Amino acid sequence: MRYLYHSSGNLPKHEFSVDMNCEGCAEAVSRVLNKLGGVQFNIDLPNKKVYIESEHSTDTLLTTLNKTGKTVCYIGPK
Amino acid sequence: MRYLYHSSGNLPKHEFSVDMNCEGCAEAVSRVLNKLGGVQFNIDLPNKKVYIESEHSTDTLLTTLNKTGKTVCYIGPK
Repeated sequence: MRYLYHSSGNLPKHEFSVDMNCEGCAEAVSRVLNKLGGVQFNIDLPNKKVYIESEHSTDTLLTTLNKTGKTVCYIGPK
Repeated sequence: MRYLYHSSGNLPKHEFSVDMNCEGCAEAVSRVLNKLGGVQFNIDLPNKKVYIESEHSTDTLLTTLNKTGKTVCYIGPK
């Protein structure tokens, strides 16, 4: 499974810290983001980071990531 | 020194995690927030949390907290 999506280069980029421990965690994150739609993302499992490019607001992205039940926090624009 | 400010009860509330280790760290956070202005905040040093009520955007608050040089992340609305 690939988590790296090509960037269009013109969407706001955000860095999130998500407490992921395994491939299943990463897949769960991938699933909620794909369900939301309108996102391009890159999951760095070893560093527990999720980079998202999207027009969605920080709050929308945070609420979406929180659906996984994992500890999430927003680091800032990337 | 007191870090608890009374809430007006009608401003958006935000929870941040800030890597503070001592009173000096908490004072540094207090200083940058007071310099920004337009904020009411409560610093929970043992739990390394900063609760802010403000009309400022999440990004403005994050940028301000990052001025301390400490590791900061936005947990979400409170």
